[in-house]
Amino acid sequence: MTSDVIRKTVGDWVYRHLVNFKHQPDDDVIEPFAKALLIAAKGDRVLSQAERDWVIGLTAAKGGSEQLIEELKNYSADEDIEQVISNHPFSNQGRRALIYTAIQACAADSEYNEGEKVSVRKIAAKLEISEDVVKQIEDLCQEEKTQLIKRVKLLYPDGHPMLVEDNGK
Amino acid sequence: MTSDVIRKTVGDWVYRHLVNFKHQPDDDVIEPFAKALLIAAKGDRVLSQAERDWVIGLTAAKGGSEQLIEELKNYSADEDIEQVISNHPFSNQGRRALIYTAIQACAADSEYNEGEKVSVRKIAAKLEISEDVVKQIEDLCQEEKTQLIKRVKLLYPDGHPMLVEDNGK
Repeated sequence: MTSDVIRKTVGDWVYRHLVNFKHQPDDDVIEPFAKALLIAAKGDRVLSQAERDWVIGLTAAKGGSEQLIEELKNYSADEDIEQVISNHPFSNQGRRALIYTAIQACAADSEYNEGEKVSVRKIAAKLEISEDVVKQIEDLCQEEKTQLIKRVKLLYPDGHPMLVEDNGK
Repeated sequence: MTSDVIRKTVGDWVYRHLVNFKHQPDDDVIEPFAKALLIAAKGDRVLSQAERDWVIGLTAAKGGSEQLIEELKNYSADEDIEQVISNHPFSNQGRRALIYTAIQACAADSEYNEGEKVSVRKIAAKLEISEDVVKQIEDLCQEEKTQLIKRVKLLYPDGHPMLVEDNGK
């Protein structure tokens, strides 16, 4: 089993786990999605290392190429988001997934702040996603954060040396 | 960036996402955990390909070695689970996580059936996990399955060609 086959095995599992997809989609959807996430996370003018690392980790987990991963490590995230996301299949069917994942990227450094909320709304407006839907997606992200805390408490009632100290709070 | 570094990047991201760990644990925890999952999934005497694939995908995502992935593809899952899980760190602190993940592995072919419930309870008894806690973990798994369905409905209101047809129901 080559490492490429393993990366594909991982990508398939991750897509099934996250959004119940049959398998990972084409590589060329992963790149603009990842760049859009970094632009969104920089919407408050600060792209923290935690945010960048989170996007890189997700992109690698989804099966993004080594070349793309390298590029993302130094990507300035200053491009116009409209140019990045236009003409890609996800810009229609994946619009809401982009907003959902962008919110998680913004929260990767423990806070999804006011500047980021404004930035997410600007991107949502460009994608013609209503404020009501943005709020529903924000609520979903909050529920899932709560679910993670609940899961960790149930599975590790006495804690675990590997746990992030704040347990995602 | 070598493929080993990428596998580590993915493993770290996956552990953070799933159980809020700082990074992936040592390789030697991943192997007995994966084998125990396959034994659990075979508890109803049938280890379906979907169950095996799910465990292999998870193990690859967590950073399991190529050698281990190869081994799991043909692992008979007939070993005594007590021997597999004894003397490993997770047998204490990771006991509940094993039951939680075993239930998901059993459900990977769309059903977590009565035979599998019995099997999970046998393993839980060996790990000194009470029936009450097993039920709490089963409820958690059900909640998370419901959460996945909700997430997919919100993110893909018009469906998506990549979606598994039953959407996890």
